[in-house]
Amino acid sequence: MNYRAIIKSISLLLLLLGATYLFPLFFSLSLKAGDHTSLILSMVITLVIAGTGYLWTRHDTAHIQRKDGFVIVTFAWVFISLFGALPYYFSGTVNTFTDAFFESMSGFTTTGATILVDIEAVPAGILFWRSLTHWLGGMGFIVLSLALLPIFGIGGMQLFKAEVPGPAPDRLKPRIAETAKTLWIVYVILSGIETILLLLGGMSFFDSLCHTFGTMATGGFSTKNLSIAAYDSAYFDGIITLFMFLAGVNFTLHYAAFRGNFRPFFKNTEFLFYTGVTVGLILVSTFFLALLTPYDVFEALRKASFQVVSIVTTTGYCTDDFELWPGFNMVLLFCLMFFGGCAGSTGGSMKQIRILILFKYAYVELHKIIHPKAVKKVKLGNTVVNESITQGVLAFVMLYFGLLALGSLLMGAIGLDLVSAFSVVTATLGNIGPGFGSVGPTDNYFHIPGIGKWLLSFFMLVGRLELYTVLILFVPEFWKK
Amino acid sequence: MNYRAIIKSISLLLLLLGATYLFPLFFSLSLKAGDHTSLILSMVITLVIAGTGYLWTRHDTAHIQRKDGFVIVTFAWVFISLFGALPYYFSGTVNTFTDAFFESMSGFTTTGATILVDIEAVPAGILFWRSLTHWLGGMGFIVLSLALLPIFGIGGMQLFKAEVPGPAPDRLKPRIAETAKTLWIVYVILSGIETILLLLGGMSFFDSLCHTFGTMATGGFSTKNLSIAAYDSAYFDGIITLFMFLAGVNFTLHYAAFRGNFRPFFKNTEFLFYTGVTVGLILVSTFFLALLTPYDVFEALRKASFQVVSIVTTTGYCTDDFELWPGFNMVLLFCLMFFGGCAGSTGGSMKQIRILILFKYAYVELHKIIHPKAVKKVKLGNTVVNESITQGVLAFVMLYFGLLALGSLLMGAIGLDLVSAFSVVTATLGNIGPGFGSVGPTDNYFHIPGIGKWLLSFFMLVGRLELYTVLILFVPEFWKK
Repeated sequence: MNYRAIIKSISLLLLLLGATYLFPLFFSLSLKAGDHTSLILSMVITLVIAGTGYLWTRHDTAHIQRKDGFVIVTFAWVFISLFGALPYYFSGTVNTFTDAFFESMSGFTTTGATILVDIEAVPAGILFWRSLTHWLGGMGFIVLSLALLPIFGIGGMQLFKAEVPGPAPDRLKPRIAETAKTLWIVYVILSGIETILLLLGGMSFFDSLCHTFGTMATGGFSTKNLSIAAYDSAYFDGIITLFMFLAGVNFTLHYAAFRGNFRPFFKNTEFLFYTGVTVGLILVSTFFLALLTPYDVFEALRKASFQVVSIVTTTGYCTDDFELWPGFNMVLLFCLMFFGGCAGSTGGSMKQIRILILFKYAYVELHKIIHPKAVKKVKLGNTVVNESITQGVLAFVMLYFGLLALGSLLMGAIGLDLVSAFSVVTATLGNIGPGFGSVGPTDNYFHIPGIGKWLLSFFMLVGRLELYTVLILFVPEFWKK
Repeated sequence: MNYRAIIKSISLLLLLLGATYLFPLFFSLSLKAGDHTSLILSMVITLVIAGTGYLWTRHDTAHIQRKDGFVIVTFAWVFISLFGALPYYFSGTVNTFTDAFFESMSGFTTTGATILVDIEAVPAGILFWRSLTHWLGGMGFIVLSLALLPIFGIGGMQLFKAEVPGPAPDRLKPRIAETAKTLWIVYVILSGIETILLLLGGMSFFDSLCHTFGTMATGGFSTKNLSIAAYDSAYFDGIITLFMFLAGVNFTLHYAAFRGNFRPFFKNTEFLFYTGVTVGLILVSTFFLALLTPYDVFEALRKASFQVVSIVTTTGYCTDDFELWPGFNMVLLFCLMFFGGCAGSTGGSMKQIRILILFKYAYVELHKIIHPKAVKKVKLGNTVVNESITQGVLAFVMLYFGLLALGSLLMGAIGLDLVSAFSVVTATLGNIGPGFGSVGPTDNYFHIPGIGKWLLSFFMLVGRLELYTVLILFVPEFWKK
């Protein structure tokens, strides 16, 4: 393990983090929110420590090994969340560092689970910082999932290679820096468009930016206690639904679209599956909402679209208390919590492509029982999916459910009831935010015992980094020379 | 498809079923329960229809193909449940044939989910018939899983072949009739011992037999409204815990033990895993019960042992309302609902060996990320598990979860709440019986809408027949020439 190179890399990232404090500081000062001291203090501490780390290790030019990569990615996210927690703590927005860390990790992992009981009482600088962590985390994850994780041999984009018709990330790989830049631009442009559209609807510049951050990162932090329901506007619901959906799409497809090439959208099996699932389930959800609640068809369609897209993309914004919805809709939302966005999007959870491969695999195996000697393989479009990829998907899903079971047991052990125990782990591991039980759409995570908040922060991290990046550090063999 | 051969086989099984009505008839008459008319009527109808079917097809000597086998097994279970439902209906124990069929399917699939609101008001003949269906179903499943399903290339015992040290079912295969006879004897002897032990504790002969049937078949029907809690006896709890555990063991191991060879127990990885999981989780459960409830350590141990074994073996007997237990214990019991007994036992759900292979597979895949070029394989004991077996296990688990999601959606659609929707499907697909929510240990299935009872009956059947036997009939290709 090249520890100096690891420290150098993380220090550089923390220096970048330190610089980003300028944005909330701008809003804090211009809106006279009074929380600028905490932001300046956080910035200084971050820059001094990161600077020291960098100065100490700057002459290290050793090549970073594959193993170092896992350590860098995991610990970068941990340290960024640790330093990113400082403003919450210094401003007195939260009472304990545990809460500050939870909120920070929830932001950077684009989970959107909050421990804030009264969001609207939080000063503007902190609130802006909170939403900005989503946006930074979302961008970080896109770069990670498109450029770095495939090199490790893991991650959703690894599966993406199984498809020929889509853009080939392989070609992008050799130039990580350039890929990163390209995707940043796509991300910034889409964010810009959403912000303008929200502004046009009459939302304040501050709220437009914060909600754009929450949308594009599939995060879910809002500046309102009632989340998007606070506006009760069909226009805002529509815009946010649309951009949540777009944020759940593989960003290499957006990149192609920006260059005028829309064909990849129609050639990409995962995108078609994602669209089909989303549209289909919106229609079924609308049917049950219209049938069994006082909502008329249009209201039902609006509420169902928003909530289905919000959950399937793992954003977690709410326009309604879905715990009061009919049983079917609740079961559906719970199941959707395992789908997630497309590979290469900011969405979390298992990812559409894994679910798609699972369905195909199950069918192929059923076919094998009928024709034991026939050779039928899992295909995406016209391409046969390599068996090692299918096996990787199956292992991923098994690990995911294993973690869900383990996590729920631990949450049960610290006193949560059955539904809440499963909910909190599903909602954090999938980077969603709201769940059911004591963490429903009208609740928050404040009541979870301290140790539980650290555990859930861990699950957010594990989920965000596609399990392996973090879990591998717990295999003793990893640390052997 | 050889329809005449199919009808002949099913008719023969129904003739056997008709003959078994003599047992409840004996209890009905000797206890003057007054329900003999309904039993005689059911017997006559069954024998006449089955006899006609047999007479019509008796000259058919065509060879039964593999495909015919799937149809015979599935439809045998369906028709047996249909005819087995007659006594409930004719005696007026239930109001609708839907309820009668549900109770009958629940019996024959050894599920133990009941629609009876007041069990103790049911006449003795019907009550005996109800428990007997468990015993017959359990025996039928052992024969099926050890002798027939492996020939189809499916089922838990298929995996058992992966292990060299255990007894080889391959050697038994050529003589299905003999295997069946051998296992019946083991089943009868174990049942005899349990009945005697219950009698010695002061339970009536009738109740001893009925509870033995429920135990050995890992069924769960009781003659008491409060299930085993009605006795509140440490002795009965202990005996039933022990025999539930034994019923969850591969019966070929019992067979070896009866012949004086106990070594296979210690050489069989699945049995060791099953024992380790059960003992380990009893201890953890006891810890939380003793810590967080008024139970002292011994009481906690007694309650925890009973409930952990009851759920892990998919029996479903209860000695306590586990919905009032601490969160940890509830989460644990819910997770255990997916484990099930060993392959070749009467237990349902996924089976221990599949869970074991899953754990090992996940570890091997994690290892692959560290050493991409190293070849590490899933092993049971010293034997490498064939990759096609591992893939079959993964497909099975995926299908299982897929059915759980689909079933829960359907149950949500007919009006069940989130917890109950997932619970009823988990509890029926796993052939367990009680679940959480509106089907907890103190509730029953009476309130489920009619269409839901038919759906759940279907899930009981699918779960009992290891998914593929039934699901394959829904693949259009199966019916092509």
